[in-house]
Amino acid sequence: MFTIRDDVRFSETDMMGVVYHPNYLHWMEMGRIDYLKRCGVTLNELMADGILFPITEVSTQYKNSLTLGDSYEVQTTMSGLNKAKMEYTYKIIRLRDGAVAVEGYTRNLFTDTQGKIKRLPDHWFKKINDVYQQEEKKHE
Amino acid sequence: MFTIRDDVRFSETDMMGVVYHPNYLHWMEMGRIDYLKRCGVTLNELMADGILFPITEVSTQYKNSLTLGDSYEVQTTMSGLNKAKMEYTYKIIRLRDGAVAVEGYTRNLFTDTQGKIKRLPDHWFKKINDVYQQEEKKHE
Amino acid sequence: MFTIRDDVRFSETDMMGVVYHPNYLHWMEMGRIDYLKRCGVTLNELMADGILFPITEVSTQYKNSLTLGDSYEVQTTMSGLNKAKMEYTYKIIRLRDGAVAVEGYTRNLFTDTQGKIKRLPDHWFKKINDVYQQEEKKHE
Amino acid sequence: MFTIRDDVRFSETDMMGVVYHPNYLHWMEMGRIDYLKRCGVTLNELMADGILFPITEVSTQYKNSLTLGDSYEVQTTMSGLNKAKMEYTYKIIRLRDGAVAVEGYTRNLFTDTQGKIKRLPDHWFKKINDVYQQEEKKHE
Repeated sequence: MFTIRDDVRFSETDMMGVVYHPNYLHWMEMGRIDYLKRCGVTLNELMADGILFPITEVSTQYKNSLTLGDSYEVQTTMSGLNKAKMEYTYKIIRLRDGAVAVEGYTRNLFTDTQGKIKRLPDHWFKKINDVYQQEEKKHE
Repeated sequence: MFTIRDDVRFSETDMMGVVYHPNYLHWMEMGRIDYLKRCGVTLNELMADGILFPITEVSTQYKNSLTLGDSYEVQTTMSGLNKAKMEYTYKIIRLRDGAVAVEGYTRNLFTDTQGKIKRLPDHWFKKINDVYQQEEKKHE
Repeated sequence: MFTIRDDVRFSETDMMGVVYHPNYLHWMEMGRIDYLKRCGVTLNELMADGILFPITEVSTQYKNSLTLGDSYEVQTTMSGLNKAKMEYTYKIIRLRDGAVAVEGYTRNLFTDTQGKIKRLPDHWFKKINDVYQQEEKKHE
Repeated sequence: MFTIRDDVRFSETDMMGVVYHPNYLHWMEMGRIDYLKRCGVTLNELMADGILFPITEVSTQYKNSLTLGDSYEVQTTMSGLNKAKMEYTYKIIRLRDGAVAVEGYTRNLFTDTQGKIKRLPDHWFKKINDVYQQEEKKHE
């Protein structure tokens, strides 16, 4: 599990006075990108190598709302990886009281730039898998 | 099932050249608000009556991407209703070829303005339930 | 002047209960894209031809706010065109009372895909200029 | 002048591969909110005190684009303050090369919750003005 922290932005609120619910998907993505960065993988390099990674599934459970003035932590855990796809689970924590705001899950496929399924090249797979295996061991 | 149609906006695209995945949740919401409107219920009236309806669950499956130049149809079906919650399922159709772009599901709870669970008053429940029952009958 | 109309989306509101101010720039862009479409020019075709058109200047004056339930009209007028740039002015009208919500101005440059200034090819220039001149004549 | 720093988010990019131009207004707002925070003023407290501060004017000049992988600094300077309005200027710096990405200006009015002009109460005015005067002195 890796974590990032940030503050709610005014632009992320809606007329109910809380963070607009699709914006939590932005934060989950920030967690996912941070996870890959810790594997030594940036989206720009993947894309330059002709690899895209479209989202094919998202699910989120909203438990507590955040508002302007709140800070949050995104806890990102890889839950599945092979050369065709990667899966993550997320917890977003409201830092003022430690409450779970959102729990989420995403799945990305790997494709070429035409959107055709493409197996992730060994080079990239190894980088991500090494960190994934290492993280898994921590929980055994 | 009720449907709305619209065109992809430039502002909805991302650096991969397609509609950014959280934005489909905006469209599902537009479908949901349209559904309520057809029940004779507007969000402003509900809120003026002290009723909020936070999202507690979303799931989406992304099947085909849309890009600038595409038009889409959101097909919104209520799949559950009681005085504590309402549930919808969605299909978003890419109109150029009829492909399903996204399938989704959402659940809203009814709360007071403090976020406490609140049973939907009869007056509002009846308006929504009448349309829901009528729609259900069409599929028997 | 060309006009488009649409309804405020829930996703466009902020915690003050009104449309979040940067979102009016999205609507001005929708007006601009619509203007080009009426010239027979789509962004996809321009981009496929290696022409980008980054925004280099925006100014907006906010006069009246819009909220959920409001509909609006974007009135888009081209105010300058040569092979290096195009300029537009905008009025966004709140339809419930005809009040001007926002007045705006934008300038786009034409560049190649590397961001280098590029003069708009004759073919495209003519399409846009024909409509621009025609529109100008209406106001003489 | 106060500064904040952050990284471009994937969600902030558009199909041209760069930060979508209205999103710079979000960052200018983050700079503005940070400025007020350094005055000991939070938006939540102002709003709880019945004071709103709608934007009435924005202008931006876009000079260099940012993309995913870029970090930026927002330099926020108050350029005018009285009990009716506050004005700021901004520079957004692309940190990889120090280039100015965007220069901007905003004006906010103070209003009550009904949108009527309201003079900023002494208590709040003093807090903001003290910092403003102090900042001004640095530049004499």
